[in-house]
Amino acid sequence: METMEKVLAVALVSGGMDSCVTAAIAAAENDLALLHVNYGQRTEERELKAFNEIADFYGVDRRLVVDLSYLKVIGGSALTDERIEVPTRDGPPPHEEASPSIPSTYVPFRNAHLLAVAVSWAEVIGAARIYIGAVEEDSAGYPDCRDSFFAAFTRTIEEGTRPETTIDIETPLIHMTKEAIVKRGVELGAPLHLTWSCYGESEAACGTCDSCLLRLRGFHGAGLEDPIPYKRGG
Amino acid sequence: METMEKVLAVALVSGGMDSCVTAAIAAAENDLALLHVNYGQRTEERELKAFNEIADFYGVDRRLVVDLSYLKVIGGSALTDERIEVPTRDGPPPHEEASPSIPSTYVPFRNAHLLAVAVSWAEVIGAARIYIGAVEEDSAGYPDCRDSFFAAFTRTIEEGTRPETTIDIETPLIHMTKEAIVKRGVELGAPLHLTWSCYGESEAACGTCDSCLLRLRGFHGAGLEDPIPYKRGG
Repeated sequence: METMEKVLAVALVSGGMDSCVTAAIAAAENDLALLHVNYGQRTEERELKAFNEIADFYGVDRRLVVDLSYLKVIGGSALTDERIEVPTRDGPPPHEEASPSIPSTYVPFRNAHLLAVAVSWAEVIGAARIYIGAVEEDSAGYPDCRDSFFAAFTRTIEEGTRPETTIDIETPLIHMTKEAIVKRGVELGAPLHLTWSCYGESEAACGTCDSCLLRLRGFHGAGLEDPIPYKRGG
Repeated sequence: METMEKVLAVALVSGGMDSCVTAAIAAAENDLALLHVNYGQRTEERELKAFNEIADFYGVDRRLVVDLSYLKVIGGSALTDERIEVPTRDGPPPHEEASPSIPSTYVPFRNAHLLAVAVSWAEVIGAARIYIGAVEEDSAGYPDCRDSFFAAFTRTIEEGTRPETTIDIETPLIHMTKEAIVKRGVELGAPLHLTWSCYGESEAACGTCDSCLLRLRGFHGAGLEDPIPYKRGG
C-alpha cells in the first residue's frame, strides 16, 4: 500500500497547552515545521524551553525561533510592559470568567505579527498550511483570536504572496472549550506535561493569572489533573 | 481663526525617495510619528541615516526603529540573502523595464510585517492613519504593493484591533509613476537629497540595480537631476 505524501505545514508553537494540542492535530496530517516567537514576554525562556521539548517530542528538526521583542518597545500590554500589572484573581481557580472585555494582557494586533512571520517562512519553504492554536471562546476579548480575523488574514495572504502560493490558516481549536482541548490533547497523546501557560512564573505556575485560570478550568472540566507544578491551588 | 487639530498618523519611512515624498504628503495633513524598519538588508545603516535625516528635516521627535532582521534568517530574497545576487542591468539607465514578474529582491510578504508593526504602534499611540509609500506600477511584480493587498489588510485591521480602533492605510503614491513622484516631491519641498534608494551601495549609488533604475527614470522623466551621488551614469 502506498503512503500518501504529507503536506508541509508550519505550526506556531508558543509552548502553551493550546499550541501543543494544535501541533498534535497538525502532526497527524502533515510534515511539520515548528515556529516559535519571542516577543519580550516575562516568561520567554520558559516558553522557549517548552517549545523545544515539544519539537523534540514530535521529532521535528525544522524549527524557527523569531524575536519580535520590538513588541515590548511598542508596549501597551501587561505581558510585555512591566509597568502594567498582570491581572490575578483572589478567588480559588477555576474561576468562571477571565477578564471582561479586552484584557490588559492583549498585545495589540499580535496575531498579525505571528502570522506574517509564518506566511513568509511558509512561502520560502513551500508549506501550504499554517496552524495556530487560537481559541475564540476563551479569548473573547482578543480581537485577533476570532474566526473573522483569520478569514480576513487569509484574504491578505492571497493578495500579498506570489500568485502560485496557496497558504491556508488552520485554527482547529477555535471553537473548542479548554475542557475539550484538554480531552483532545490526551486522546492524541500530546505531551501536555511539557507545556507552559503561566504569564508570570517560570518555575511553578502561579495558578492565578488569566492563563492559569483558563488552563485549570480546562483540566477541572475534563476531570483530569494538570501534570505541571503550581505554586498554590491547581 | 481656529487651527484645526491635526490627526496623528504613522508614516513608514524607509529612507528612500517614495517614503520621503509620502512623509511630505502626510506632514501636510497630520501630526507625524515616523517608523523605520530594518530587515537585514545590505544597505541597512545607510537607510537608517536617511530616515533620521528626513525625521530631523520634518522636526519629528516621535520615531520608532524596529529590527525585523529575522527576515534575513527566513531568506528567500536577494535583499536579505547574500547567496542571491542583486540583479543589475548592463544597459545605461534609465532602463525601460525593471525585472519581469516577481523580482528576486522580493521579500516574501514583507509589507504585511511592516504594516503589522505600524498597526500595533498606531493602536498604542492613538494614531488613526498609516502612510506607506507603496507604488503599484513600478513594483508590478511585488504582490504586497498592490491596492488589493492594502484593501485586504485594512479589513484585517478592522477585525484584529479593538472595536473602538479605526486605522486607515493611506497609499498616496500607489498609482503614481516615478516621474510624478519626483515632481510631487519637488513641489512639496521634500528633502530628496537626503534619501537613499540603492539596494547595493551605501557611499555612492550603483545606478544599475532595479531601485536605482526606477529612481533615475523618475528624475529623467521629470527633467531633473538626481541630487544624490552615483558611481556611474546617473
